[in-house]
Amino acid sequence: MVAPKKRSSNGCPIARSLERAGDRWSILILRDAMQGNSRFDEFHRNLGIAPNMLTRRLSSLVDAGLMERRLYSEKPPRYEYLLTPSGEDFLPVLVALQRWGTANFSPEGAHTLLVDCETRLEATPVLVDARTGIAVSKDRHAIVPGPVANRHLRAYLTATPQRQPRKP
Amino acid sequence: MVAPKKRSSNGCPIARSLERAGDRWSILILRDAMQGNSRFDEFHRNLGIAPNMLTRRLSSLVDAGLMERRLYSEKPPRYEYLLTPSGEDFLPVLVALQRWGTANFSPEGAHTLLVDCETRLEATPVLVDARTGIAVSKDRHAIVPGPVANRHLRAYLTATPQRQPRKP
Repeated sequence: MVAPKKRSSNGCPIARSLERAGDRWSILILRDAMQGNSRFDEFHRNLGIAPNMLTRRLSSLVDAGLMERRLYSEKPPRYEYLLTPSGEDFLPVLVALQRWGTANFSPEGAHTLLVDCETRLEATPVLVDARTGIAVSKDRHAIVPGPVANRHLRAYLTATPQRQPRKP
Repeated sequence: MVAPKKRSSNGCPIARSLERAGDRWSILILRDAMQGNSRFDEFHRNLGIAPNMLTRRLSSLVDAGLMERRLYSEKPPRYEYLLTPSGEDFLPVLVALQRWGTANFSPEGAHTLLVDCETRLEATPVLVDARTGIAVSKDRHAIVPGPVANRHLRAYLTATPQRQPRKP
């Protein structure tokens, strides 16, 4: 009999995501990389992070498959850190954090804006169900067990009846 | 002359968000609260987190205005922790993390699904620009300085030309 996994994960994709990018520095490094930065010195300068901490965070992002390390100078040897496709796919999380921060913790106004580069108009990011176009909300949507959910995750997700789909 | 703020924030709404919910435990507590949990024992049981750590994280979520503490039993005194409107507004970040985790770190299949409670059909979360309906992507969208950006943030955001809107 296989021992159950740690209860905080149990295959939950949010927990899996946070195992890879679940601390402030890692997320800020991904933000800076999304913005076009790739070199140790750039991350160091932008973030004001201690060099040993930055080294650790970059290694852990590489190990997690979110960034890749590439030699860009042979003499002296210098490396840059580039987002992988999985790392680039983190963009919606960053934009969701940007929207949340602006809407809730920035009463003085918007420090940053998302813009559409084609039209140069401000974009209004909203998470929708692609099938219906309806914004994802706690009143309308729920997270339920998927096809490969184990019994622990299934029990966790079904123990909270107010989040279950209404009976037809 | 006012000293500049820490370079990692500079008003950046992503950094501000992470000051409030920028560690794995806080985000997992918000996940559990979104799922309908509210009591210390529920968070403790679901997360397998040490009680002193849980106490600290709940206090910090209350201090950040994301949860409120409410007495639900007088004898003995017992408190529950409920999401505030700002806390509930974290849902798109959680769903973005769920989508990212499922798409990138779950080759065996989906452990959880988002469903539309009205139709009982699976929902496909996607972050779009509400103005155009176009999915937010690195190729089409960029983060630029907003009206209240300070000079540090402005310099940071304009130092990365590949993320600037194309000239018309």
